[in-house]
Amino acid sequence: MLAGKRSFSVCSRTMASKTPVGFIGLGNMGNPMAKNLVKHGYPVIVYDVFPEACKEFQDLGAQVTESPADVAERADRIITMLPSSPHAKEVYTGGNGILKKVKKGSLLIDSSTIDPAVSKELAKAAEKTGAVFMDAPVSGGVGAARAGNLTFMVGGVEQEFNAAKELLTCMGSNVVYCGEVGTGQAAKICNNMLLAISMIGTAETMNLGIRLGLDPKLLAKILNMSSGRCWSSDTYNPVPGVMEGVPSANNYQGGFGTTLMAKDLGLAQISATSTKTPVPLGSQAHQIYRMMCAKGYALKDFSAVFQFLREEESL
Amino acid sequence: MLAGKRSFSVCSRTMASKTPVGFIGLGNMGNPMAKNLVKHGYPVIVYDVFPEACKEFQDLGAQVTESPADVAERADRIITMLPSSPHAKEVYTGGNGILKKVKKGSLLIDSSTIDPAVSKELAKAAEKTGAVFMDAPVSGGVGAARAGNLTFMVGGVEQEFNAAKELLTCMGSNVVYCGEVGTGQAAKICNNMLLAISMIGTAETMNLGIRLGLDPKLLAKILNMSSGRCWSSDTYNPVPGVMEGVPSANNYQGGFGTTLMAKDLGLAQISATSTKTPVPLGSQAHQIYRMMCAKGYALKDFSAVFQFLREEESL
Amino acid sequence: MLAGKRSFSVCSRTMASKTPVGFIGLGNMGNPMAKNLVKHGYPVIVYDVFPEACKEFQDLGAQVTESPADVAERADRIITMLPSSPHAKEVYTGGNGILKKVKKGSLLIDSSTIDPAVSKELAKAAEKTGAVFMDAPVSGGVGAARAGNLTFMVGGVEQEFNAAKELLTCMGSNVVYCGEVGTGQAAKICNNMLLAISMIGTAETMNLGIRLGLDPKLLAKILNMSSGRCWSSDTYNPVPGVMEGVPSANNYQGGFGTTLMAKDLGLAQISATSTKTPVPLGSQAHQIYRMMCAKGYALKDFSAVFQFLREEESL
Amino acid sequence: MLAGKRSFSVCSRTMASKTPVGFIGLGNMGNPMAKNLVKHGYPVIVYDVFPEACKEFQDLGAQVTESPADVAERADRIITMLPSSPHAKEVYTGGNGILKKVKKGSLLIDSSTIDPAVSKELAKAAEKTGAVFMDAPVSGGVGAARAGNLTFMVGGVEQEFNAAKELLTCMGSNVVYCGEVGTGQAAKICNNMLLAISMIGTAETMNLGIRLGLDPKLLAKILNMSSGRCWSSDTYNPVPGVMEGVPSANNYQGGFGTTLMAKDLGLAQISATSTKTPVPLGSQAHQIYRMMCAKGYALKDFSAVFQFLREEESL
Repeated sequence: MLAGKRSFSVCSRTMASKTPVGFIGLGNMGNPMAKNLVKHGYPVIVYDVFPEACKEFQDLGAQVTESPADVAERADRIITMLPSSPHAKEVYTGGNGILKKVKKGSLLIDSSTIDPAVSKELAKAAEKTGAVFMDAPVSGGVGAARAGNLTFMVGGVEQEFNAAKELLTCMGSNVVYCGEVGTGQAAKICNNMLLAISMIGTAETMNLGIRLGLDPKLLAKILNMSSGRCWSSDTYNPVPGVMEGVPSANNYQGGFGTTLMAKDLGLAQISATSTKTPVPLGSQAHQIYRMMCAKGYALKDFSAVFQFLREEESL
Repeated sequence: MLAGKRSFSVCSRTMASKTPVGFIGLGNMGNPMAKNLVKHGYPVIVYDVFPEACKEFQDLGAQVTESPADVAERADRIITMLPSSPHAKEVYTGGNGILKKVKKGSLLIDSSTIDPAVSKELAKAAEKTGAVFMDAPVSGGVGAARAGNLTFMVGGVEQEFNAAKELLTCMGSNVVYCGEVGTGQAAKICNNMLLAISMIGTAETMNLGIRLGLDPKLLAKILNMSSGRCWSSDTYNPVPGVMEGVPSANNYQGGFGTTLMAKDLGLAQISATSTKTPVPLGSQAHQIYRMMCAKGYALKDFSAVFQFLREEESL
Repeated sequence: MLAGKRSFSVCSRTMASKTPVGFIGLGNMGNPMAKNLVKHGYPVIVYDVFPEACKEFQDLGAQVTESPADVAERADRIITMLPSSPHAKEVYTGGNGILKKVKKGSLLIDSSTIDPAVSKELAKAAEKTGAVFMDAPVSGGVGAARAGNLTFMVGGVEQEFNAAKELLTCMGSNVVYCGEVGTGQAAKICNNMLLAISMIGTAETMNLGIRLGLDPKLLAKILNMSSGRCWSSDTYNPVPGVMEGVPSANNYQGGFGTTLMAKDLGLAQISATSTKTPVPLGSQAHQIYRMMCAKGYALKDFSAVFQFLREEESL
Repeated sequence: MLAGKRSFSVCSRTMASKTPVGFIGLGNMGNPMAKNLVKHGYPVIVYDVFPEACKEFQDLGAQVTESPADVAERADRIITMLPSSPHAKEVYTGGNGILKKVKKGSLLIDSSTIDPAVSKELAKAAEKTGAVFMDAPVSGGVGAARAGNLTFMVGGVEQEFNAAKELLTCMGSNVVYCGEVGTGQAAKICNNMLLAISMIGTAETMNLGIRLGLDPKLLAKILNMSSGRCWSSDTYNPVPGVMEGVPSANNYQGGFGTTLMAKDLGLAQISATSTKTPVPLGSQAHQIYRMMCAKGYALKDFSAVFQFLREEESL
């Protein structure tokens, strides 16, 4: 019986917790995440489409493989961190994908941010091979990845959550169970959509207030003690001079890039379209970050929308 | 010298702090506000366009007058609480308006929520008569007006702020100086615009998350510990069942009416247009509350936007 | 050589022009389209997921089959008319799909309105079997389908266009070649997005004009001789009483349903997201038709947006 | 009786049709308009806030005056062409305004584009002096002003329309009666709002189509024979290379400036707000032209929105 096999495998995995862990996708985020696994004593088996990305891990003692399928042959716990839905499809279900050689009972954790509908597809495909797939996208950027304090939002079979958590806590300080497969992605997409809306809202509100004669610091203070308060106004204010230690104090460098926000809003848009959910401000936020990307803001922090909106008209 | 006269008057006003205070506009908000002045021992001289609104105050020992000009003749401190810009213009500059008979050095405090440009006009007109005009719109509804814990956002000459505060603290727990005339209105409009944006954003985000399979309480919890957090998600969540003691737990009754939010967003729109400030989400929020008013939501709390958006499509 | 085989097949197809034609999808649109093929003397081989939809065709002498694969076995020219991308994927690439048994050189014409990216996928899959896939979505509703004057927008290899046109002219009066595979869909999606935008624009403009005191007929006349003119103002005016013979003159019955417009705008949204194209008004139009669907307008003509927007606010 | 006096004056005005006509506001538009009056044999009495603007007219034999009041003293038919609502208020009701010295029965025609509510205010003020005020904003730019083929949209008492038309036909080829005072402005604002919406819609649609692989000329052709057709697609296409003789063929020079479109959309917004009319796309169009003004497009033709949206994202 499948369920029986699965719980057995979970058992064996847990017992041998320092058996090798596969890691696929060693980019800006994957690199420090995988290193944190190494630091916690896990033997790591890596793959990246760019061989040079693996080199550093070879020096750390990791096994380097030739394909996702190879990783799946050697490790029964695998974490993937990939840039988009098509990449994830290829790594899991492609010709040399994980599912070609995955062992029954393996635990597959995808930390990419992708369309929740794709997560569900991959979970179904994994189930057919007897493996368990969970989506576990992260919140927090490269800094949090290095420091090991990412937040993971996890979707999948609840019985497997503890097994996933064991690994994810090596890389994050916060591991939240969200529900069935795809809900990790859903939670992330939802948070970022609301974040984008409230950031743009904060930027246009601060700009309007300034033009109406209010001092920006005073306005921020008033908002933050009132019902307009939000994370973008009280923790990450987009107006230069209002707060220290945020991207707006540093010419919008660092932080969470506009192009990444535009990507997440695109995913929100696709999910809203397929579920026929009206998201009037979310769709407008998507358009605004899209336009910003085209106007040279792609690599600036997403709070640069204040700069985008504030420019004075001139003839 | 005008400035000299003015500071002298301030002085005389301050010395005689329990001299009569005029109050014009005894509606849902003005009524409890004026009563709080009475409770604090101020003799009150009242006027309302509907004579029956004054009756209750006659019984409380207040003088009832025939016109705003009459009030101005008998009191050198006057508070006005009116529904819109045209009403404020009429009460101050109309044929029987305050300015027809205002005494030099009088302090005129307008707690109406109106276009900041109109506040500036009225301040100029008042200045010509030797009186001082301040805008002091409130945040908080009828409940806060009764309890005397409104927030006042005050714009006007800074030297007069203490004189205004003396009266306003009888009616509010929070009196904030915002800057020159009009900035009280600006602060209020800004806060409410950001509030509307983040409320709609919260509503559409919660709705999307629910349709993607997330439990609403869990989603709210995730947002509230993440960067999507805002007052509308953590203090006034629009989804029934997520929080107690908020309008969404009571069929969207009570709270801040959709029609009032639409009015404030209209003021924000006018201010943004006249200062040429782009407010892409603010203008969209205005349109959404406008449509809600036309669909029967006018008297429901503004968090009912969740209900407006959640309805399932059906053929 | 594949190209050689293909042109040979084309040749044989053309020579035997009254050989059987397959038709899959006999819904509201497919039914009258297939009947027009019969009227033009083509033997038709039909399949529909609902067997009863085929019955009528049996009586007309058509062969009824058990699956799309069966159709492909018996006909080397097939037309499909399906409700959405997933249906099209299933009919072409599913377990009993066309491509399981398609003959080399077959011509596959998909008249469904789907994501152009899916059309491209299907074309690639068809190419691997030696068949030719073209997308040919239609403009015009059930009435035009019956009358045989649909417009077809065709994407695919140009050399095959004449072969497709031979069949499509039996069902439509206008067959336009748009470019490579997917461009038929692109043209349709683009037209409908602009149509939705200008219809909503016309509705809100007419509504504003009426509230500002203009007579609706006069306003329409002024717009139509000025730069605001569009098909929605001069041919399909959404305001009751302005024109005869349009859905607005008949309580918004007939015409092009709001739910269908919402679907097409969803496709536009997906295409815009995947090509990173900013479509600020198109995305807003999508949201508005989405909200209308949830408010009971799903089956009304899409010009009912005037009715949706015009309702007066009332307390 | 006032009505009697008025019709008498009309009569005397008509009989002496080549009596002097006042003209106030000799800017880009007013200059060629006033010249066309001169060409038609009308003695002209001019005023402009910049004295140098009058010089040219002195050379043409016109009387130059010191103030709007002076003009009103010498002419009983006056045309005004001013940049905005505050200017119009000043010229009519200011200290040296027309109404200070206007003769009973005078005909005052304001061709400025302003808030229709302001037109109504000015009409009321004029009526108190026994004069007749009409609003008659124009459509068409500097070229049409020079060529004398502007379109005038006229609001005011219908009996005075012919008297106004006599003068306006010297400057325009099309003089349309729209209804009571303010409806001329309303018609213009409505047309330009729909124009802005359909222009942005055309721009984003063409851009999307191009990115989906369609040839722009072909796409324009398809739209123009379909329901997406509008003036912006078939007469003033915003995509370079699609049409000749339009601003898009000339780097968006000439035509109707983005800053002027933003102004008219601001007026539409104010009118919509005051009449509580939802204009979801109109308000978004306003925001987009506002952002364009801030991004250096202020003086380009408004069809440059295609250029604004088309820029490719780049990292």
